[in-house]
Amino acid sequence: MIISLNDDEAWALLRKGRLARLGCIADGEPYVVPVNYAAEGACVLIHSLPGRKIRAMRANPYVCLQVDEITDHCHWRSVLAYGTYEEVGNGAERARAMNRLLAAFPQLTPVESRLAADAAAPSPIIFRIRVEQITGLCED
Amino acid sequence: MIISLNDDEAWALLRKGRLARLGCIADGEPYVVPVNYAAEGACVLIHSLPGRKIRAMRANPYVCLQVDEITDHCHWRSVLAYGTYEEVGNGAERARAMNRLLAAFPQLTPVESRLAADAAAPSPIIFRIRVEQITGLCED
Repeated sequence: MIISLNDDEAWALLRKGRLARLGCIADGEPYVVPVNYAAEGACVLIHSLPGRKIRAMRANPYVCLQVDEITDHCHWRSVLAYGTYEEVGNGAERARAMNRLLAAFPQLTPVESRLAADAAAPSPIIFRIRVEQITGLCED
Repeated sequence: MIISLNDDEAWALLRKGRLARLGCIADGEPYVVPVNYAAEGACVLIHSLPGRKIRAMRANPYVCLQVDEITDHCHWRSVLAYGTYEEVGNGAERARAMNRLLAAFPQLTPVESRLAADAAAPSPIIFRIRVEQITGLCED
Protein backbone atom coordinates (compact mmCIF):
# COMPACT_ATOMS: atom_id res chain seq x y z
CA MET A 1 0.00 0.00 0.00
CA ILE A 2 1.29 3.46 -0.90
CA ILE A 3 0.93 6.09 1.83
CA SER A 4 2.08 9.68 2.23
CA LEU A 5 5.00 10.61 4.47
CA ASN A 6 4.35 13.42 6.89
CA ASP A 7 6.57 16.52 6.82
CA ASP A 8 8.92 15.25 9.53
CA GLU A 9 9.41 11.91 7.78
CA ALA A 10 9.99 13.61 4.43
CA TRP A 11 12.54 16.05 5.89
CA ALA A 12 14.30 13.19 7.70
CA LEU A 13 14.77 11.34 4.41
CA LEU A 14 16.00 14.50 2.67
CA ARG A 15 18.45 15.31 5.50
CA LYS A 16 19.80 11.78 5.63
CA GLY A 17 20.42 11.48 1.88
CA ARG A 18 23.52 12.39 -0.11
CA LEU A 19 22.33 11.64 -3.65
CA ALA A 20 19.38 13.36 -5.31
CA ARG A 21 18.00 13.66 -8.78
CA LEU A 22 17.69 17.33 -9.60
CA GLY A 23 14.86 18.22 -11.96
CA CYS A 24 14.74 21.53 -13.76
CA ILE A 25 13.40 22.98 -16.99
CA ALA A 26 16.05 23.53 -19.68
CA ASP A 27 14.99 25.26 -22.89
CA GLY A 28 11.38 24.36 -22.11
CA GLU A 29 12.18 20.65 -21.64
CA PRO A 30 12.38 18.58 -18.46
CA TYR A 31 15.99 17.89 -17.47
CA VAL A 32 17.08 15.48 -14.73
CA VAL A 33 20.59 14.87 -13.41
CA PRO A 34 21.97 13.00 -10.41
CA VAL A 35 23.65 15.32 -7.89
CA ASN A 36 25.40 14.88 -4.59
CA TYR A 37 24.18 17.21 -1.90
CA ALA A 38 24.52 18.12 1.74
CA ALA A 39 21.45 19.31 3.63
CA GLU A 40 21.81 22.45 5.73
CA GLY A 41 18.79 23.82 7.56
CA ALA A 42 15.98 24.38 5.09
CA CYS A 43 18.41 24.21 2.16
CA VAL A 44 20.59 21.73 0.38
CA LEU A 45 24.06 22.60 -0.88
CA ILE A 46 25.35 21.34 -4.24
CA HIS A 47 28.64 21.72 -6.07
CA SER A 48 28.86 21.66 -9.85
CA LEU A 49 30.93 22.62 -12.83
CA PRO A 50 29.24 25.10 -15.19
CA GLY A 51 27.04 23.46 -17.79
CA ARG A 52 23.48 22.91 -18.93
CA LYS A 53 21.92 22.52 -15.48
CA ILE A 54 23.49 25.76 -14.22
CA ARG A 55 22.33 27.65 -17.32
CA ALA A 56 18.86 26.14 -16.93
CA MET A 57 18.54 27.07 -13.25
CA ARG A 58 19.82 30.61 -13.80
CA ALA A 59 17.05 31.04 -16.39
CA ASN A 60 14.36 29.19 -14.45
CA PRO A 61 15.24 28.86 -10.76
CA TYR A 62 12.26 26.82 -9.54
CA VAL A 63 13.50 23.22 -9.37
CA CYS A 64 12.86 19.94 -7.60
CA LEU A 65 15.01 17.39 -5.84
CA GLN A 66 13.90 13.77 -5.75
CA VAL A 67 15.50 11.56 -3.09
CA ASP A 68 14.64 7.94 -2.39
CA GLU A 69 15.50 4.78 -0.53
CA ILE A 70 14.50 1.82 -2.66
CA THR A 71 14.69 -1.77 -1.43
CA ASP A 72 12.73 -3.18 -4.34
CA HIS A 73 9.84 -2.02 -6.48
CA CYS A 74 7.31 -2.83 -3.75
CA HIS A 75 9.31 -1.40 -0.82
CA TRP A 76 10.53 2.16 -1.17
CA ARG A 77 10.20 5.71 0.10
CA SER A 78 10.68 8.81 -1.99
CA VAL A 79 10.53 12.53 -1.35
CA LEU A 80 10.14 15.41 -3.74
CA ALA A 81 11.41 18.77 -2.48
CA TYR A 82 10.57 21.87 -4.45
CA GLY A 83 12.62 25.00 -4.07
CA THR A 84 14.56 27.83 -5.55
CA TYR A 85 18.08 27.94 -6.94
CA GLU A 86 20.43 30.42 -5.25
CA GLU A 87 24.08 30.75 -6.19
CA VAL A 88 26.49 30.99 -3.29
CA GLY A 89 28.69 34.08 -3.60
CA ASN A 90 32.42 34.35 -3.10
CA GLY A 91 34.29 35.05 0.11
CA ALA A 92 33.24 33.86 3.54
CA GLU A 93 29.88 32.51 2.35
CA ARG A 94 31.54 30.30 -0.22
CA ALA A 95 34.21 29.10 2.21
CA ARG A 96 31.54 28.13 4.74
CA ALA A 97 29.48 26.27 2.13
CA MET A 98 32.57 24.50 0.79
CA ASN A 99 33.46 23.38 4.32
CA ARG A 100 29.99 21.90 4.71
CA LEU A 101 30.33 20.06 1.38
CA LEU A 102 33.83 18.83 2.21
CA ALA A 103 32.56 17.47 5.53
CA ALA A 104 29.94 15.46 3.60
CA PHE A 105 32.24 14.54 0.68
CA PRO A 106 35.88 14.48 1.80
CA GLN A 107 36.94 13.17 -1.64
CA LEU A 108 36.02 16.53 -3.18
CA THR A 109 39.35 17.89 -1.94
CA PRO A 110 41.52 16.44 -4.73
CA VAL A 111 39.06 17.65 -7.37
CA GLU A 112 39.17 21.13 -5.91
CA SER A 113 42.95 21.06 -5.68
CA ARG A 114 43.29 19.81 -9.22
CA LEU A 115 40.97 22.48 -10.50
CA ALA A 116 42.82 25.16 -8.55
CA ALA A 117 46.10 24.00 -10.13
CA ASP A 118 44.68 24.18 -13.65
CA ALA A 119 44.27 27.76 -14.76
CA ALA A 120 42.16 26.66 -17.76
CA ALA A 121 39.65 24.74 -15.65
CA PRO A 122 36.27 26.42 -15.13
CA SER A 123 35.45 27.47 -11.57
CA PRO A 124 33.09 25.13 -9.78
CA ILE A 125 29.81 26.69 -8.77
CA ILE A 126 28.29 26.20 -5.36
CA PHE A 127 24.56 26.67 -5.08
CA ARG A 128 21.78 25.96 -2.68
CA ILE A 129 18.21 24.93 -3.22
CA ARG A 130 16.03 26.66 -0.65
CA VAL A 131 13.27 24.11 -0.04
CA GLU A 132 9.78 25.60 -0.04
CA GLN A 133 7.62 22.50 -0.21
CA ILE A 134 8.23 18.83 0.42
CA THR A 135 6.09 15.76 -0.19
CA GLY A 136 6.82 12.09 0.26
CA LEU A 137 5.40 8.67 -0.45
CA CYS A 138 6.17 5.25 0.96
CA GLU A 139 5.23 1.71 -0.06
CA ASP A 140 5.81 -1.17 2.34
CA MET B 1 37.50 12.72 -15.75
CA ILE B 2 33.98 13.02 -17.12
CA ILE B 3 33.50 11.80 -20.69
CA SER B 4 30.49 11.31 -22.97
CA LEU B 5 29.06 7.89 -23.69
CA ASN B 6 28.50 7.11 -27.34
CA ASP B 7 25.02 6.13 -28.55
CA ASP B 8 25.64 2.38 -28.23
CA GLU B 9 26.93 2.73 -24.67
CA ALA B 10 24.02 4.96 -23.70
CA TRP B 11 21.43 2.58 -25.20
CA ALA B 12 23.11 -0.39 -23.49
CA LEU B 13 22.75 1.29 -20.10
CA LEU B 14 19.11 2.20 -20.81
CA ARG B 15 18.28 -1.35 -21.99
CA LYS B 16 19.99 -2.96 -19.01
CA GLY B 17 18.28 -0.80 -16.38
CA ARG B 18 15.00 -1.38 -14.58
CA LEU B 19 14.74 1.80 -12.51
CA ALA B 20 14.60 5.30 -13.99
CA ARG B 21 13.76 8.73 -12.79
CA LEU B 22 11.07 10.15 -15.03
CA GLY B 23 11.14 13.90 -15.47
CA CYS B 24 8.18 15.80 -16.81
CA ILE B 25 6.62 19.24 -16.52
CA ALA B 26 3.56 19.39 -14.25
CA ASP B 27 1.65 22.67 -14.06
CA GLY B 28 4.72 24.46 -15.38
CA GLU B 29 7.00 22.96 -12.72
CA PRO B 30 9.64 20.25 -13.02
CA TYR B 31 8.40 16.95 -11.59
CA VAL B 32 10.57 13.86 -11.02
CA VAL B 33 9.48 10.40 -9.89
CA PRO B 34 11.20 7.02 -9.73
CA VAL B 35 9.65 4.49 -12.10
CA ASN B 36 10.30 0.87 -12.96
CA TYR B 37 10.52 0.22 -16.66
CA ALA B 38 11.20 -2.44 -19.25
CA ALA B 39 12.98 -1.46 -22.46
CA GLU B 40 11.46 -2.65 -25.72
CA GLY B 41 13.05 -1.63 -29.02
CA ALA B 42 13.30 2.15 -29.15
CA CYS B 43 10.76 2.51 -26.32
CA VAL B 44 10.46 1.85 -22.63
CA LEU B 45 7.28 0.49 -21.08
CA ILE B 46 6.00 1.74 -17.72
CA HIS B 47 3.02 0.80 -15.55
CA SER B 48 1.39 3.32 -13.24
CA LEU B 49 -1.74 4.13 -11.32
CA PRO B 50 -3.45 7.37 -12.42
CA GLY B 51 -2.08 10.45 -10.70
CA ARG B 52 -0.08 13.61 -11.15
CA LYS B 53 2.54 12.22 -13.53
CA ILE B 54 -0.11 10.78 -15.87
CA ARG B 55 -2.02 14.08 -15.88
CA ALA B 56 1.24 15.95 -16.51
CA MET B 57 2.32 13.74 -19.42
CA ARG B 58 -1.11 13.83 -21.05
CA ALA B 59 -0.87 17.62 -21.02
CA ASN B 60 2.81 17.82 -21.96
CA PRO B 61 4.05 14.55 -23.48
CA TYR B 62 7.72 15.42 -24.00
CA VAL B 63 9.56 13.86 -21.04
CA CYS B 64 12.95 12.51 -20.04
CA LEU B 65 14.17 9.36 -18.35
CA GLN B 66 17.36 9.46 -16.32
CA VAL B 67 19.06 6.12 -15.63
CA ASP B 68 22.36 5.61 -13.85
CA GLU B 69 24.81 3.18 -12.34
CA ILE B 70 26.56 4.87 -9.44
CA THR B 71 29.44 3.28 -7.55
CA ASP B 72 30.37 6.44 -5.69
CA HIS B 73 30.38 10.13 -6.49
CA CYS B 74 33.58 9.83 -8.55
CA HIS B 75 32.62 6.61 -10.40
CA TRP B 76 29.29 6.61 -12.21
CA ARG B 77 27.56 6.55 -15.55
CA SER B 78 24.27 8.22 -16.33
CA VAL B 79 22.05 8.49 -19.38
CA LEU B 80 19.30 10.91 -20.20
CA ALA B 81 16.75 9.70 -22.75
CA TYR B 82 14.27 12.19 -24.15
CA GLY B 83 11.07 11.02 -25.71
CA THR B 84 7.34 11.21 -26.05
CA TYR B 85 4.61 9.75 -23.85
CA GLU B 86 2.20 7.35 -25.57
CA GLU B 87 -0.57 5.55 -23.74
CA VAL B 88 -0.96 1.88 -24.56
CA GLY B 89 -4.55 1.09 -25.62
CA ASN B 90 -6.71 -1.79 -24.55
CA GLY B 91 -6.99 -5.24 -26.10
CA ALA B 92 -4.11 -7.11 -27.69
CA GLU B 93 -1.68 -4.18 -27.47
CA ARG B 94 -2.21 -3.87 -23.72
CA ALA B 95 -1.94 -7.63 -23.17
CA ARG B 96 1.37 -7.72 -25.05
CA ALA B 97 2.78 -4.77 -23.10
CA MET B 98 1.63 -6.27 -19.81
CA ASN B 99 3.34 -9.55 -20.68
CA ARG B 100 6.58 -7.67 -21.32
CA LEU B 101 6.27 -5.87 -17.97
CA LEU B 102 5.40 -9.08 -16.11
CA ALA B 103 8.46 -10.75 -17.61
CA ALA B 104 10.60 -7.94 -16.18
CA PHE B 105 8.67 -7.63 -12.89
CA PRO B 106 7.02 -10.93 -11.96
CA GLN B 107 5.87 -9.47 -8.63
CA LEU B 108 3.43 -7.21 -10.48
CA THR B 109 1.04 -10.14 -10.79
CA PRO B 110 -0.44 -9.98 -7.27
CA VAL B 111 -0.91 -6.22 -7.61
CA GLU B 112 -2.81 -6.70 -10.85
CA SER B 113 -4.90 -9.49 -9.34
CA ARG B 114 -5.68 -7.45 -6.26
CA LEU B 115 -6.68 -4.48 -8.37
CA ALA B 116 -8.87 -6.68 -10.58
CA ALA B 117 -10.65 -7.99 -7.47
CA ASP B 118 -11.34 -4.49 -6.14
CA ALA B 119 -14.03 -2.78 -8.20
CA ALA B 120 -13.20 0.60 -6.58
CA ALA B 121 -9.52 0.49 -7.53
CA PRO B 122 -8.49 2.71 -10.43
CA SER B 123 -7.25 0.94 -13.57
CA PRO B 124 -3.50 0.92 -13.95
CA ILE B 125 -2.21 2.73 -17.00
CA ILE B 126 0.45 1.30 -19.26
CA PHE B 127 2.42 3.76 -21.31
CA ARG B 128 5.56 3.87 -23.36
CA ILE B 129 8.15 6.55 -23.81
CA ARG B 130 9.32 6.54 -27.42
CA VAL B 131 12.95 7.59 -27.15
CA GLU B 132 13.98 10.26 -29.65
CA GLN B 133 17.34 11.35 -28.26
CA ILE B 134 19.78 9.87 -25.80
CA THR B 135 22.91 11.27 -24.17
CA GLY B 136 25.20 9.84 -21.56
CA LEU B 137 28.12 10.74 -19.32
CA CYS B 138 30.61 8.65 -17.43
CA GLU B 139 33.20 9.42 -14.74
CA ASP B 140 35.85 6.85 -13.87
